[in-house]
Amino acid sequence: MSGMNEIRRQIPGVVDALLGTYDRHGGTSHNLSGRPLPDRQVVAAILDDLLEVLYPGYYGPREMTEDNVRYYVGERVDRLAFRLRRELYRALHHRCVKPGGDCVTCHAGADRIVVTFLGKLAELRRVLAKDVRAGFEGDPAATGLDEIIFCYPGLYAITVYRIAHIIHSAGGPIIPRMMTELAHSRTGVDIHPGASIGESFFIDHGTGVVIGETTLIGERVRLYQGVTLGALSLSATETETLRGHKRHPTIEDEVVIYANATILGGDTIIGKGAVIGGNVWITKSIAAGTRVTL
Amino acid sequence: MSGMNEIRRQIPGVVDALLGTYDRHGGTSHNLSGRPLPDRQVVAAILDDLLEVLYPGYYGPREMTEDNVRYYVGERVDRLAFRLRRELYRALHHRCVKPGGDCVTCHAGADRIVVTFLGKLAELRRVLAKDVRAGFEGDPAATGLDEIIFCYPGLYAITVYRIAHIIHSAGGPIIPRMMTELAHSRTGVDIHPGASIGESFFIDHGTGVVIGETTLIGERVRLYQGVTLGALSLSATETETLRGHKRHPTIEDEVVIYANATILGGDTIIGKGAVIGGNVWITKSIAAGTRVTL
Amino acid sequence: MSGMNEIRRQIPGVVDALLGTYDRHGGTSHNLSGRPLPDRQVVAAILDDLLEVLYPGYYGPREMTEDNVRYYVGERVDRLAFRLRRELYRALHHRCVKPGGDCVTCHAGADRIVVTFLGKLAELRRVLAKDVRAGFEGDPAATGLDEIIFCYPGLYAITVYRIAHIIHSAGGPIIPRMMTELAHSRTGVDIHPGASIGESFFIDHGTGVVIGETTLIGERVRLYQGVTLGALSLSATETETLRGHKRHPTIEDEVVIYANATILGGDTIIGKGAVIGGNVWITKSIAAGTRVTL
Amino acid sequence: MSGMNEIRRQIPGVVDALLGTYDRHGGTSHNLSGRPLPDRQVVAAILDDLLEVLYPGYYGPREMTEDNVRYYVGERVDRLAFRLRRELYRALHHRCVKPGGDCVTCHAGADRIVVTFLGKLAELRRVLAKDVRAGFEGDPAATGLDEIIFCYPGLYAITVYRIAHIIHSAGGPIIPRMMTELAHSRTGVDIHPGASIGESFFIDHGTGVVIGETTLIGERVRLYQGVTLGALSLSATETETLRGHKRHPTIEDEVVIYANATILGGDTIIGKGAVIGGNVWITKSIAAGTRVTL
Amino acid sequence: MSGMNEIRRQIPGVVDALLGTYDRHGGTSHNLSGRPLPDRQVVAAILDDLLEVLYPGYYGPREMTEDNVRYYVGERVDRLAFRLRRELYRALHHRCVKPGGDCVTCHAGADRIVVTFLGKLAELRRVLAKDVRAGFEGDPAATGLDEIIFCYPGLYAITVYRIAHIIHSAGGPIIPRMMTELAHSRTGVDIHPGASIGESFFIDHGTGVVIGETTLIGERVRLYQGVTLGALSLSATETETLRGHKRHPTIEDEVVIYANATILGGDTIIGKGAVIGGNVWITKSIAAGTRVTL
Amino acid sequence: MSGMNEIRRQIPGVVDALLGTYDRHGGTSHNLSGRPLPDRQVVAAILDDLLEVLYPGYYGPREMTEDNVRYYVGERVDRLAFRLRRELYRALHHRCVKPGGDCVTCHAGADRIVVTFLGKLAELRRVLAKDVRAGFEGDPAATGLDEIIFCYPGLYAITVYRIAHIIHSAGGPIIPRMMTELAHSRTGVDIHPGASIGESFFIDHGTGVVIGETTLIGERVRLYQGVTLGALSLSATETETLRGHKRHPTIEDEVVIYANATILGGDTIIGKGAVIGGNVWITKSIAAGTRVTL
Repeated sequence: MSGMNEIRRQIPGVVDALLGTYDRHGGTSHNLSGRPLPDRQVVAAILDDLLEVLYPGYYGPREMTEDNVRYYVGERVDRLAFRLRRELYRALHHRCVKPGGDCVTCHAGADRIVVTFLGKLAELRRVLAKDVRAGFEGDPAATGLDEIIFCYPGLYAITVYRIAHIIHSAGGPIIPRMMTELAHSRTGVDIHPGASIGESFFIDHGTGVVIGETTLIGERVRLYQGVTLGALSLSATETETLRGHKRHPTIEDEVVIYANATILGGDTIIGKGAVIGGNVWITKSIAAGTRVTL
Repeated sequence: MSGMNEIRRQIPGVVDALLGTYDRHGGTSHNLSGRPLPDRQVVAAILDDLLEVLYPGYYGPREMTEDNVRYYVGERVDRLAFRLRRELYRALHHRCVKPGGDCVTCHAGADRIVVTFLGKLAELRRVLAKDVRAGFEGDPAATGLDEIIFCYPGLYAITVYRIAHIIHSAGGPIIPRMMTELAHSRTGVDIHPGASIGESFFIDHGTGVVIGETTLIGERVRLYQGVTLGALSLSATETETLRGHKRHPTIEDEVVIYANATILGGDTIIGKGAVIGGNVWITKSIAAGTRVTL
Repeated sequence: MSGMNEIRRQIPGVVDALLGTYDRHGGTSHNLSGRPLPDRQVVAAILDDLLEVLYPGYYGPREMTEDNVRYYVGERVDRLAFRLRRELYRALHHRCVKPGGDCVTCHAGADRIVVTFLGKLAELRRVLAKDVRAGFEGDPAATGLDEIIFCYPGLYAITVYRIAHIIHSAGGPIIPRMMTELAHSRTGVDIHPGASIGESFFIDHGTGVVIGETTLIGERVRLYQGVTLGALSLSATETETLRGHKRHPTIEDEVVIYANATILGGDTIIGKGAVIGGNVWITKSIAAGTRVTL
Repeated sequence: MSGMNEIRRQIPGVVDALLGTYDRHGGTSHNLSGRPLPDRQVVAAILDDLLEVLYPGYYGPREMTEDNVRYYVGERVDRLAFRLRRELYRALHHRCVKPGGDCVTCHAGADRIVVTFLGKLAELRRVLAKDVRAGFEGDPAATGLDEIIFCYPGLYAITVYRIAHIIHSAGGPIIPRMMTELAHSRTGVDIHPGASIGESFFIDHGTGVVIGETTLIGERVRLYQGVTLGALSLSATETETLRGHKRHPTIEDEVVIYANATILGGDTIIGKGAVIGGNVWITKSIAAGTRVTL
Repeated sequence: MSGMNEIRRQIPGVVDALLGTYDRHGGTSHNLSGRPLPDRQVVAAILDDLLEVLYPGYYGPREMTEDNVRYYVGERVDRLAFRLRRELYRALHHRCVKPGGDCVTCHAGADRIVVTFLGKLAELRRVLAKDVRAGFEGDPAATGLDEIIFCYPGLYAITVYRIAHIIHSAGGPIIPRMMTELAHSRTGVDIHPGASIGESFFIDHGTGVVIGETTLIGERVRLYQGVTLGALSLSATETETLRGHKRHPTIEDEVVIYANATILGGDTIIGKGAVIGGNVWITKSIAAGTRVTL
Repeated sequence: MSGMNEIRRQIPGVVDALLGTYDRHGGTSHNLSGRPLPDRQVVAAILDDLLEVLYPGYYGPREMTEDNVRYYVGERVDRLAFRLRRELYRALHHRCVKPGGDCVTCHAGADRIVVTFLGKLAELRRVLAKDVRAGFEGDPAATGLDEIIFCYPGLYAITVYRIAHIIHSAGGPIIPRMMTELAHSRTGVDIHPGASIGESFFIDHGTGVVIGETTLIGERVRLYQGVTLGALSLSATETETLRGHKRHPTIEDEVVIYANATILGGDTIIGKGAVIGGNVWITKSIAAGTRVTL
């Protein structure tokens, strides 16, 4: 270990050099405000609780019956509400301009979002049941609805997106992105929480799917791995101009988009029932019912 | 925390609304049968034990010698057999039509699959050694066989597929898919346990690879990232008709398929020694020895 | 459990069969040398400590101020130096030809690499700050620099690559690859630690990106998901010949490469400011300023 | 590590020598029956759940209100019932004479005990509330009833004893002893689950208290640290004769026994309201109301 | 598992019965106020951090040198201050009479106690060093000062008492008792945080030692296992009268008290340099220099 | 959190004050040598592995049969040998006078002790089996030999003592004391590893038992809770003189010592077959066969 003692003698110099790069005023990659960001592990735990509540008997404690389901669901909802409230406060307060510690405005904002979110859980269950069914109908390899819920990464990504979208729509910052990035990391499916996606949606295999912030997707749409619904190329100056504008395509009802197809642009509309073949590259609108292949 | 107490007052209503969506009869996204599904974490632990047994000294306790390897291998095999037996019982009994608790038929089925599986482990070692060698011969960036085993996600995905394929072939439900989805999540490589893959197989980089349920792959085949071996597009009614039929291509010996190529259809055959270039889209058979590029 | 006892009776035979495949001399997929490889979990912990030090207040203990940042940074640097030293020793000694136990040469080598690495941390901070800014300027969906650091998998992959590249350049084996594979698993972005990448680099969405070992990338380059910077196809005999030669392209300053584009070959140069459209397949050089689309 | 390899060469011999001492027939200190004993950690977890249910808001999730208490209590009762059932089966089956695996008789026995136990939980709450009050009234250092529940090891030991006593009385083997030994380890108070103890019982400081299997204790009794309620000395042959007979004293209502007093013998009766001073040694009965000091 | 489903059907009734015992108004053994008590695990973690700071190199990260000790100590002090502040708030607010949530008074109180406590840490180091030396001088079995710090439960109990006493003296409720009960559970030594103990104090073996709330102990005092410094017996009515009065003995400088001796009463004074033999029972004052034996 | 920021501003001062007390030269309660002490958690893990090996089927993985016991025992022996070797090195090197890092002498010493220790494990099994039987014969409350092994803290303490005694006799420092203090903490039984204890030894209830360093105990001896086998009182100057001399009593074969009895002095001999009653205080020898009571 004498080598380690040699190394230790260097460490104070290394630390001083690092501290020299933590410039309090205007620095970009350090946060010395004393205002913590939401905790990644807690946000992941909130998602775990939500999955137990949304698919009881599939996630979490395995043996669920009519006799015990009420207790488990109640316990999880209480726990996730408590945690979501605290993390939303952190997310809101991180960018809050008011000086000082405990912020009444941010607390009130967090409370409001939690109440809104909880009020939509039962409806979310209804929507997800249709996504499950769409998954089963879209894949001949599926042996049952239970396999879709239990094994399909596409359904996992859609579920997390729908959760994140509710919080995003209610005005909760950062946390929706943390949630969809967790799903992205696990499934390779990257859906921006700002996207709008209709019922009975299905993504098969999933890896490499990207759905941009201002995408609009209708009902009964089906995607495969590697599909991009993205923005057209843009110069550095355009980036600023485009913040907040529609930059991603509109996909109407009953469209199917096969593997690795790319559809770009805020004015691009894929008409109802169109079928986009694999590896196709589209930057213009496609009429309803059209079949596009390489 | 008074805000939290306000929120708590809403929770009983939220719970009641959720419970209202758990319809015992015919519901699709809840499992109140009291029959648990296999435990995800235990299935992951079974895979970890298998990796230690299949690549001793690379996974798990690091210092392995001829003197201690017998004990470690024996301990892991015993542990994984015990766990696999219980999870297989859950998988079989989850869909078993018999009423009531402990099911003799499902226990016997689980035991039979475990015995079959254990009996194939030594042969699996032999096959995997050839995959390792294929990996080294296929990548000039590899600095040794040990790097293939220790760092290549492609080999990890192939190993998990070969494990899952044995259990799938022995009639074990759900668990093979759980295993390949674990590998999919970790590597971005999605191989259905039903696919049939010959010896000396290699996938480089891996992310975005999809190999469908009825794919047949010969010996000494090499794939790169983003390759899809999939089914042709199909309508909702076709889905049902196609369950169980061959829908994915046949890849003969010594074929190489470069990044992001897509090969679709149950009748599509890529002949021996053919080379498929990157981004190529194929829905028809290709003769042996052909080189196809964009 | 009587079934389990039946199974147990098979296990000694299974173990003997497995042991029969662990051939001491010349075996390829077992390591019975008693020389352990680096520990995956410790390498992951080293990365976690580095992220806390490189982005204080974003990773790790949340509430960071000017008053406590010195202690946290110092504690992490000390811890990671200790761990990195031990894992580097394992990596070096694993392939060391000297017989016997403790190896003075490998210890000295590990110490030297740790000192070199620590000496570059402050400069790394400066470079990463430019990557963060490039990310913000490249994505209109980003709501602030903090979101880039906290939520963008592309930045995570670049950060891990830059860490791994320093260790790789200092002569540390195996561990750089373990690090980039950890990032690959989490983000779908596979950057070889040997690649050379200039400042202000940005990858959006990330999944499916592959950057090969001998790639050269200039400054202010931007990539999207699914981009491959790879080698041309090669026969088995060519593999050996090519080890150590430049096989991957050169990307000059200010190039943008859109989703799923593939650029191959060691002689391929994408000239300054060129724009490569999505799904494009390139095996020849492209002149500066050119715009290539499908 | 070459030293370790030397040591490793000895290990097979060590293992063989150990195995030589595991004599299947008649051995005393190994259990190779394949019938597991209850799991210590699970029994500890059952106690943790029971403490949350018996003292809601003091143990476990801290913030408890009328709105969420039902869910938490229901979830814990369900969980502990499931676990207790399995551990009771193991305890019963460990000594069951029937050959083979799953034993219907032992399962039925475990189920019966669980149902009996659950049926007594509400009554147990009532009894414990009186123990809490006795603790507060007996110690001028206590600042409130909450401190008794939250900080007093004596109450913890009494609570665990009362739980164990119910299971013991219902015919559950081994587990009651595991429970009281857990409390013994944590508090130094060793109460045999077979002892019978009346209401409003209090032990202050606790360490070193021993209450034997056939002790009878009335109501409103108070003990201090180091008190033994034990058996008289006995020869080896007497041990066998005495199994199952009353060997420990009877303590009538309202007795107080001070620190390190020892009271021995199955015929010894400490009459109502007697006060036994510290360090006193008693092997004969004491009349009601008497004050005995050194 | 059908047995479990039978049991599950009983659970709603069990839960209702339990809830019936949670009487909101005036109940004694449930806390449905929504105001949490301090978290036991966090209080234990605070003690762990304190031990690392008070005995650097003996507790916690093992390799400590002059080069890294500042960082470790700083990180631990920052962490424990943060945690202590939150737990003290909970302890204060639990009994606060003000309605509603966040309480400015309790926050200010917690902050004040933390600042006071931190300000006394360096002085505490000085006092503990004298306790360590007293331990070494008192036990011929000790092989060095390091063994006293590393292995002697008596020193651990004294250290925790001295920490708890500072917080108690600064007005922190509940937490000091939680701390000394943690030490009591681990060592069998029960020192009330309110006791006053001079420098160079030593307890050998420890188990069964009880030191009451109003005990006064001088300098260079030595105790052995089983020693009680307690209150005289008292009736139930006396309990209330005595709260807050001196009920435990005064031990002057340089007294030695051997195993299992008991000294009782608030007016009992053991004079300077007295030696109290094992098993002795004392309720009257003893003159300085006296030797009392059985 | 603004309060926390206030507190944070104090912390640098607190840290500086603490650092001021870490005097490198001659300090007594800090270890800044960079030479770590043995790791408490690892020593505890070594004991856990030993208990699994010494009582297979009672500790650790529950289902043990003749078919799998070899693997489990081999895996545990290998693991504990590796760990014990490293911790013994730390214990030896901590007090080693040689400067610098890796110390060949201390490594050789650790290796030698490990080999000696492993060589005595099978004999230890034989001795412990007699302790188990002595426990059963001594307690009419015991329902079987299995209950003695599984539930009796006395047997646990004796087992840990016998392990520690072997290491102590082989010259291993510090670790034997760490082991017996772990058992002390868990059971309240404090046996110094230097004591010499014959076969068929039994301690019932245990809490408060102290057996000093130079105690000699014959065969078939039985102790109860609170028994002290200790040294006579001694002055500070005597302490130094007595280091290494016999200071604790000799207990001959077949002696029984009841609860809370105290026997002191290195010349005190309790003759064969004597019975010492509870609470008795002895400082002189007792003839064989005598019965001593209060």
